Amino acid sequence: MFDAASTGHKVGDDLYAKEVRELRSSLLAAQYELLDRPTCPVIVLVNGVDGAGKGESVNLLNEWLDPRHVRTRAFGPPTVEERRHPSMWRYWQALPPKGKIGVLFGSWYSDPIDARARAKPTDADLAAELERIRTFEQMLVDDGTVLVKLWFHLSKENQKRRFNELEKTKTTSWRVTSQDWKNAQRYDRLYKVSEVVLRETSTGVAPWLVVDGADANYRALSVGRALLAALRSRLGAANVAARKGKVQVVETDTATPPAVAIVQSLDTSAILVSLPFTERLSREKYDIKVAKSQAKLGRLSRSPQAQHHAIVAVFEGMDAAGKGGAIRRMTQALDARRYVVIPIAAPTDEERAQPYLWRFWRHVPAEGQTAIFDRSWYGRVLVERVEGYASEAAWSRAYREINEFEQQLHDRGVVVVKFWLAITKEEQIKRFKERQATAHKQFKITPDDWRNRKKWDDYIRAASDMIDRTNTSYAPWTILEANDKHLARVRALETLNQRLKKLG
Amino acid sequence: MFDAASTGHKVGDDLYAKEVRELRSSLLAAQYELLDRPTCPVIVLVNGVDGAGKGESVNLLNEWLDPRHVRTRAFGPPTVEERRHPSMWRYWQALPPKGKIGVLFGSWYSDPIDARARAKPTDADLAAELERIRTFEQMLVDDGTVLVKLWFHLSKENQKRRFNELEKTKTTSWRVTSQDWKNAQRYDRLYKVSEVVLRETSTGVAPWLVVDGADANYRALSVGRALLAALRSRLGAANVAARKGKVQVVETDTATPPAVAIVQSLDTSAILVSLPFTERLSREKYDIKVAKSQAKLGRLSRSPQAQHHAIVAVFEGMDAAGKGGAIRRMTQALDARRYVVIPIAAPTDEERAQPYLWRFWRHVPAEGQTAIFDRSWYGRVLVERVEGYASEAAWSRAYREINEFEQQLHDRGVVVVKFWLAITKEEQIKRFKERQATAHKQFKITPDDWRNRKKWDDYIRAASDMIDRTNTSYAPWTILEANDKHLARVRALETLNQRLKKLG
Repeated sequence: MFDAASTGHKVGDDLYAKEVRELRSSLLAAQYELLDRPTCPVIVLVNGVDGAGKGESVNLLNEWLDPRHVRTRAFGPPTVEERRHPSMWRYWQALPPKGKIGVLFGSWYSDPIDARARAKPTDADLAAELERIRTFEQMLVDDGTVLVKLWFHLSKENQKRRFNELEKTKTTSWRVTSQDWKNAQRYDRLYKVSEVVLRETSTGVAPWLVVDGADANYRALSVGRALLAALRSRLGAANVAARKGKVQVVETDTATPPAVAIVQSLDTSAILVSLPFTERLSREKYDIKVAKSQAKLGRLSRSPQAQHHAIVAVFEGMDAAGKGGAIRRMTQALDARRYVVIPIAAPTDEERAQPYLWRFWRHVPAEGQTAIFDRSWYGRVLVERVEGYASEAAWSRAYREINEFEQQLHDRGVVVVKFWLAITKEEQIKRFKERQATAHKQFKITPDDWRNRKKWDDYIRAASDMIDRTNTSYAPWTILEANDKHLARVRALETLNQRLKKLG
Repeated sequence: MFDAASTGHKVGDDLYAKEVRELRSSLLAAQYELLDRPTCPVIVLVNGVDGAGKGESVNLLNEWLDPRHVRTRAFGPPTVEERRHPSMWRYWQALPPKGKIGVLFGSWYSDPIDARARAKPTDADLAAELERIRTFEQMLVDDGTVLVKLWFHLSKENQKRRFNELEKTKTTSWRVTSQDWKNAQRYDRLYKVSEVVLRETSTGVAPWLVVDGADANYRALSVGRALLAALRSRLGAANVAARKGKVQVVETDTATPPAVAIVQSLDTSAILVSLPFTERLSREKYDIKVAKSQAKLGRLSRSPQAQHHAIVAVFEGMDAAGKGGAIRRMTQALDARRYVVIPIAAPTDEERAQPYLWRFWRHVPAEGQTAIFDRSWYGRVLVERVEGYASEAAWSRAYREINEFEQQLHDRGVVVVKFWLAITKEEQIKRFKERQATAHKQFKITPDDWRNRKKWDDYIRAASDMIDRTNTSYAPWTILEANDKHLARVRALETLNQRLKKLG
């Protein structure tokens, strides 16, 4: 697929000078229009063959655009800190907020291509990785991102010629590293792998553009025009939406159909509705059991094996289900230096300028650390679905996005435990009343709680769908009968202990 | 000064159980009150002798408080990434936002004490470091932070006894490391240095509390009570302010007098008023000079020496002074992978929940990187002073805080260049009119620009004071006559080049 790119396109200097003038002012105008209506971020991925002009093109884009609103990030081999997180973590941090242009020099494609060329993973591994990337990019595009994927191509002969040229002069010789020559020897392998990767990830929503890197003028114009076309098509789409009076919608939503068709099955919500709520744990037994489970968690979480893993614990449930109490019994057993509890409140404005999952990505723990979420990314398919804060398209595709996210965690050795604390409607009203009667618990009850209670059945349906669709082997849900707080707390501890024990 | 702490305080278990019950509920109540009126963050520093119960106390605080609103950070030896930044950088990142409680296990005191005990720096170095810490803490307190500094003490004999006890049992022996025994051998040295450090940094706004670590009960109550007293005194002060109808002020301001008395000197603003504005640079000469300067900057910024330094370039000046154009001439010469331009706009809500400088701390470049600020922390003493967004106490102490901040950068090898682009009032109106006439420049002119222009003299006075008070040897100001854009752009490049050349 690179052959078409290697046919020796050339643009003369005069033509270039003329063309580039117009291109630059158009690009700048489009950039400011984007800033003015910041509904989407722009991401430019820069990948390809060494010596094909990647660095030059990145510098050129920064020269042409207003650099105050461009964020360029270059990715080399992962740092120690980056290796302690899921492989996508460093890219999650680098995404530009809405209205800005992010140039990623090296991207989520670099590692899989490089690894496969070294013949480390198998074709099946690579295929799985590419499927993951497709899901990730689909999510970005669904979220409104303009994704421009540039592949810089150079034939084997041209690459060798280019390196030799650069090495001749003192002022440019430093730009050819020994790694470049090593990669050149692997040209054929890299070529083959790249071809597969590009073919498999050139999707309708995020196609690759192969840029012939041999001629600097031609290359520069290709890159500039590709970015301009992408900006214009998005700005055009936004204009249409604006004319239709649609700009006020909360979600920037493309016309993508829901990723998962939601068919209300009869037996789904039965999971939550048919819980017996009969078991009880006496105070005496609870005191013994909780102390035992905490001691065990204390040991397991401090074991040498645990230091190569991280823990993510998610607590969801109706208001007053006892999430806070269960969380405290868990943290009491952990080393305070190694855990953090993240209560999910309304997103900050920095979080609102990013994809939905971004506010959780930033809290993903490094190995040896624990993150406990008091409510979580499941808000998308619970409160946001029920209250209509997210469009149907947005929350229905969230199941897949969430499964993918948790898979990423799992792949990096993160133990993901997810708890639904189930209580009955009667138990909830009892607790609301208790809280109102107790001085130091009044802060715990808000008008929102009463409002949510009115939509009890909607929440139960949403929770049932959620458990149904996100109950994976690598991140299973545990439903805790929580009418008895003691029982729920001990079970939460025991569940985590069981998962940690399996680490070896 | 530790002797008073070593007199063998003991609290029996019965008394402890009784006292702790009340303490816990008071602490929790105070924590929620703090959350309800988030005007200030709380920082608890945990330092002291190994084996004196620091870890236990941190865990206890997390157990007593609602862990969802506590952020605990432990600091070991700095990571590779941390070493690429100023030494305070990792602490800047760890400060809790308003309303939250941050527990710092190990703090900005750990490194200076440890280094001095190894006899690396001199007493004079230590004194300078402590002066810096005092300024930093004063800034936090001025900003509304409640700072609780705990020093855990244990006598030499008790320390040895404790380590031996821990080593006896399998379940606790891992807690004594070889480093602990090494530190024990240095007990006397550490004792001597710590004594000096505590004496020198027990200021009125941020005193140390020495906690006797020998008895667990006594220790726990001391820590809890210290935190409770600090919370209550702040909440009490806030109540008084609220009764006086003062809660609406933008700044959380304590009654601290201005750090620097502003006396309007006659000759200060002369710097800016008496600029000749006569020099001109023709287009032809400019083209040659700018190309030459850019080539030089390209080489200097890519030199091996430059990789151990970072560059911070600050651009300030009246509206339409040509900051954007000067910045672009600079970035054109730099590697896009290694610089970032930060346009300073209104703070985000995450930034508003932190000390004023925090939004700049987060952009401090690592070694080998460049950060260019289009407007900067000087906004505090320019627009915020003139428009009254900051109180007089806040902006007048900012000079010292800024000098201190830039000193930190300088000490880590950051090259700090600061430009004031000076134009005349006549030149500004000419440019405003040009911008309004040119289609693709209209975005550059806003109602704010016209409003600011009316306060021209106030801005000139503020700028003159700023240059006067922050023109340090390590971060000098360069005033660029910018009525001629060509001249200003070339001079900015030449100034940076001269500074980089001095790197060796």
